[in-house]
Amino acid sequence: MSTGRTVAPRSAAPRQNDRVPTSDAVLDPAVSARLTRDERGLVAAVVQQHDSGEVLMLGWMDDEALRRTLTEGRVTFWSRSRQEYWRKGDTSGHVQYVRSVALDCDGDALLVRVDQVGAACHTGDRTCFDAGDLGAVAGGPA
Amino acid sequence: MSTGRTVAPRSAAPRQNDRVPTSDAVLDPAVSARLTRDERGLVAAVVQQHDSGEVLMLGWMDDEALRRTLTEGRVTFWSRSRQEYWRKGDTSGHVQYVRSVALDCDGDALLVRVDQVGAACHTGDRTCFDAGDLGAVAGGPA
Repeated sequence: MSTGRTVAPRSAAPRQNDRVPTSDAVLDPAVSARLTRDERGLVAAVVQQHDSGEVLMLGWMDDEALRRTLTEGRVTFWSRSRQEYWRKGDTSGHVQYVRSVALDCDGDALLVRVDQVGAACHTGDRTCFDAGDLGAVAGGPA
Repeated sequence: MSTGRTVAPRSAAPRQNDRVPTSDAVLDPAVSARLTRDERGLVAAVVQQHDSGEVLMLGWMDDEALRRTLTEGRVTFWSRSRQEYWRKGDTSGHVQYVRSVALDCDGDALLVRVDQVGAACHTGDRTCFDAGDLGAVAGGPA
């Protein structure tokens, strides 16, 4: 049954949104081959402020979001809730400038070191973890 | 059809492995209610060295792994590959002592600040990201 809309698989023809120009470029195959994607085709992206070491947030990237992040100097995520690319700061002004990107040993997580403009969290907090302390019991050598 | 084996849902009766004593304790319902779990019942756990700020690794926790981590002073993950609880350091000696645990704004990621003994990565590297630089183009204000 046709709905009048077609949605191409993301890996073959990434969906574009209005924020970013369409491009025929694809992620470097040597990088793509190292990714261990989840069922949605995504890897986790830990975003860290490059100088202070603050962990700012966790986002998600597919191949195309990673390609943009590696080449544009700005961080782009795949929004699981909105099902679209999301270049951080385009709406809020809270831009993340890329300093480095590293893949972990098993290929399912990225560490993205950035220079964060303003608040990383949509709540206005500097990081998405600022308001969430769970009161853990601390440990140490016995 | 019975296979002679029954597997209880993890949320009701967490599977135990040999490393950790069985307990009837459950995660604080006030914490549990704040979690946004993926299809596997898991949230991502970013592990950070508390003083240097190094991001050491990314693991996964279900409710029971989080309960243990919040109460035992040691970090326990749910291993997606082995399908069992995994208290970091029990085999390797590379223990993670808990300093704090925070949940992010949308409930699907934890920031676990630890004191890491030795290497966090199974490769022997200090962090799981040490060997994975992807050569990103750095960005900055135009």
